[in-house]
Amino acid sequence: MKKKNKKVNAAILIIGNEILSGRTQDKNVTFIANWLNLKCGISVNEVRVIPDIEKIIVKNILNMSKEFNYVFTTGGIGPTHDDITAQSISKAFKVKYEYHKEAFNILESYYGKKKFNDGRKKMAKMPKGSKLIYNPSSAAPGFITKNVLSLPGVPSILISMIENCKKFLIKGSKTHSKTLSLFTVESNISKQMSIIQKKYKKFIDIGSYPFFRLGKIGVSIVCRSTSLIKLKKVNRDLIKMVKSKKIKILKT
Amino acid sequence: MKKKNKKVNAAILIIGNEILSGRTQDKNVTFIANWLNLKCGISVNEVRVIPDIEKIIVKNILNMSKEFNYVFTTGGIGPTHDDITAQSISKAFKVKYEYHKEAFNILESYYGKKKFNDGRKKMAKMPKGSKLIYNPSSAAPGFITKNVLSLPGVPSILISMIENCKKFLIKGSKTHSKTLSLFTVESNISKQMSIIQKKYKKFIDIGSYPFFRLGKIGVSIVCRSTSLIKLKKVNRDLIKMVKSKKIKILKT
Repeated sequence: MKKKNKKVNAAILIIGNEILSGRTQDKNVTFIANWLNLKCGISVNEVRVIPDIEKIIVKNILNMSKEFNYVFTTGGIGPTHDDITAQSISKAFKVKYEYHKEAFNILESYYGKKKFNDGRKKMAKMPKGSKLIYNPSSAAPGFITKNVLSLPGVPSILISMIENCKKFLIKGSKTHSKTLSLFTVESNISKQMSIIQKKYKKFIDIGSYPFFRLGKIGVSIVCRSTSLIKLKKVNRDLIKMVKSKKIKILKT
Repeated sequence: MKKKNKKVNAAILIIGNEILSGRTQDKNVTFIANWLNLKCGISVNEVRVIPDIEKIIVKNILNMSKEFNYVFTTGGIGPTHDDITAQSISKAFKVKYEYHKEAFNILESYYGKKKFNDGRKKMAKMPKGSKLIYNPSSAAPGFITKNVLSLPGVPSILISMIENCKKFLIKGSKTHSKTLSLFTVESNISKQMSIIQKKYKKFIDIGSYPFFRLGKIGVSIVCRSTSLIKLKKVNRDLIKMVKSKKIKILKT
């Protein structure tokens, strides 16, 4: 990892008809977002899911790579006709789509010369100038082109590769969070929460999420901040407010 | 539902820091996408997840409402300070953010005059001219403003409301799908699949998705089309191809 920078953000671009059609439930966003925050201090500011259509991929790569520090793509880097992430990124950045020598060698030695067919060779084609993100589970590497990191869509393979992204990322400040779970309804505390949010506006992001547990309705108040000290302060204010209203605390 | 139209599309805009932070796994996309296709013949062409920040919501509402036939928003219509979907849509469309009389009456009679506090009243404030999407589980209605339908983020409440969206939607042609599961690897069939995809380019979308089952690696080939006849034709071609390669079929 490179030098420390305060606010570093990322976006995730999911390339996959199977998510849009509702056939497959995405599991990568939760994993990537948690990993980026915990391990790199990078916060995910936007997610998009788009179909396997070249001109749409190109447009989104161009927009998002300008708007965010990093873009993580998932999906579309396999051997079949619908895997068009690498060629689309090449088009977006106007660089050649060609064999990456090291990727070619990795795949050739993994499959053996005889079984290294055209489909498998395709997985060694990338935008010119890309660097490899090694894949310890199924050989076919991901790659980084400018600030765009391309990973596969299969969650188990993605998970096995994520640590290999680290060396390409600038580290930011980690966002800490604190959750206060209450047996009450949102509207009972909305006014007071709003006052507390205003008081700490610059430092804390307070979210409120209703839940149903043990047959009762409750609210989780989630505070997030890069400052642990400010986070503790807000939590004290919230607990004081909650106690003054005689609300039962389920978990601090 | 209104008159039948061939291709009708939608986008989903998830408004919620809790999804971006990785704290909460979204479950609404899969449900909405399946419901829209099965019940309305509408296909979801894009999904975005964005934070609870007014100017970002405004920008996305404006872009997406122009680009797609319908936009479904989820989240941010509750009683707390971080629920800013309604006021942001008002800003986007430059209409007043004001009490909706019927929504106000529904909520007042649900909570009773004494317990109808400011937080709860907030849930009756909407963009001027919105129509209500009734909520059979917790009263607070969703709303439609131009072509934007706003639903809550809590999946169980969203599910209970979805049928009430139907009357606002123009029906399109349903997309049918057929899945062929094989015990093989993608690269073994990628060339042939590519030829079949080219042959049916205009009518069928063929996707290929690796899986791990019973300790073996396999591939699901998913064909999607609005034409059932074309779908059966492609399936015959695929089965013929697979049999010629002596690949074991797990499920047709």
